[in-house]
Amino acid sequence: MTSVRETVNESEPRASRKRHVILQAARTVFLRNGYVGTSMDEIAGLAAVSKQTVYKHFTDKECLFSELVTTTVSEISDRVHEELLNLEDSGKLEEDLSAWARRTLASVMQPAVLQLRRLVIGEATRFPELGRTFYELGPRRTIETLATVFAQLAERGVLQLDDPALAAEHFNWLIMSAPLNRAMFFGDDQPLAAGDLDRYADAGVRVFIAAHGTPGHE
Amino acid sequence: MTSVRETVNESEPRASRKRHVILQAARTVFLRNGYVGTSMDEIAGLAAVSKQTVYKHFTDKECLFSELVTTTVSEISDRVHEELLNLEDSGKLEEDLSAWARRTLASVMQPAVLQLRRLVIGEATRFPELGRTFYELGPRRTIETLATVFAQLAERGVLQLDDPALAAEHFNWLIMSAPLNRAMFFGDDQPLAAGDLDRYADAGVRVFIAAHGTPGHE
Repeated sequence: MTSVRETVNESEPRASRKRHVILQAARTVFLRNGYVGTSMDEIAGLAAVSKQTVYKHFTDKECLFSELVTTTVSEISDRVHEELLNLEDSGKLEEDLSAWARRTLASVMQPAVLQLRRLVIGEATRFPELGRTFYELGPRRTIETLATVFAQLAERGVLQLDDPALAAEHFNWLIMSAPLNRAMFFGDDQPLAAGDLDRYADAGVRVFIAAHGTPGHE
Repeated sequence: MTSVRETVNESEPRASRKRHVILQAARTVFLRNGYVGTSMDEIAGLAAVSKQTVYKHFTDKECLFSELVTTTVSEISDRVHEELLNLEDSGKLEEDLSAWARRTLASVMQPAVLQLRRLVIGEATRFPELGRTFYELGPRRTIETLATVFAQLAERGVLQLDDPALAAEHFNWLIMSAPLNRAMFFGDDQPLAAGDLDRYADAGVRVFIAAHGTPGHE
């Protein structure tokens, strides 16, 4: 995959605004038509810029799609990451993990993020690079941060675990998997209510603490 | 979604053979071209039958795809279901759950099944009925059977759990999620080795037993 070509010559704020408008248009067109069904012409039309302007900001369709994935996933991932790093100093483990899990699950379950996830998975057989970008910036980054936090909690005797990386994978998927997999297959039909998502988040945390908690640290 | 039209007039074994050949061709074409990119013409060509013959067995493209999903998922799901029902009489819970989890994970992680799963997810925004068919016959059926088995194990004091259905969801995704989500995004690149899959299966079972096991029943 080619990387984003940095040859924008316009004044920065204006260029940055145009870039944003193009990305918004790209999101709409890709989610509506799928990857193969999307053309740079249609994105330019919806963004009300010339095709040359689109190509000035993004080398090709693959690059534009990759940038859309990066922007969308990183926006969530940055917040998730930051909130996780604030976990380690509190004394109320279950409460804190549940609050984090609820917020993170709600972010991941936003309809536009789910649609992008489905699109990326649908194209991953033909374009595994696109899938890898989503995976590395999303789930893998969260799991690695979780592993760091869990290792610290284990050192302080708050958790007991042999393998922080594996425990982090289990924790992440205990929270996310049931609602996320359902949503992957159901499309936008019958979305779960916020209360159901909270219950999945809390229940996942309870199983994790039952398996890895230590007496006196609930 | 329309259901499969049962108007086949040929002698049964020959009709059944043709049906099988058409389904095999459909699998190849759908996985190669995606749902939208597949035509009944191309399937007929690969199956070396007339287009009329395809339509005699399957009303339309949606119906043929639905039948492909049903056949593929049910084939795995039937075995998974049957093996689960044999679990309840053994005394070695962790060993038995691990053996089942290893076999089930290996089935779900077959490349052709992963490709179909990606294709169905990729189309679920536009065709949620296709996704629902996969979900109901696959994950939901397994989880419901797990819930029945876990409820019986809880009655016998081998597991402790308040909510067998929720415990079944947790168990299923503790086993499947990490390798399955990775594979969804990585396409067919860098598949995990059989040994890695077994380790995920065993580790998921250990977390489940740590959370829900009872003393003296390991």
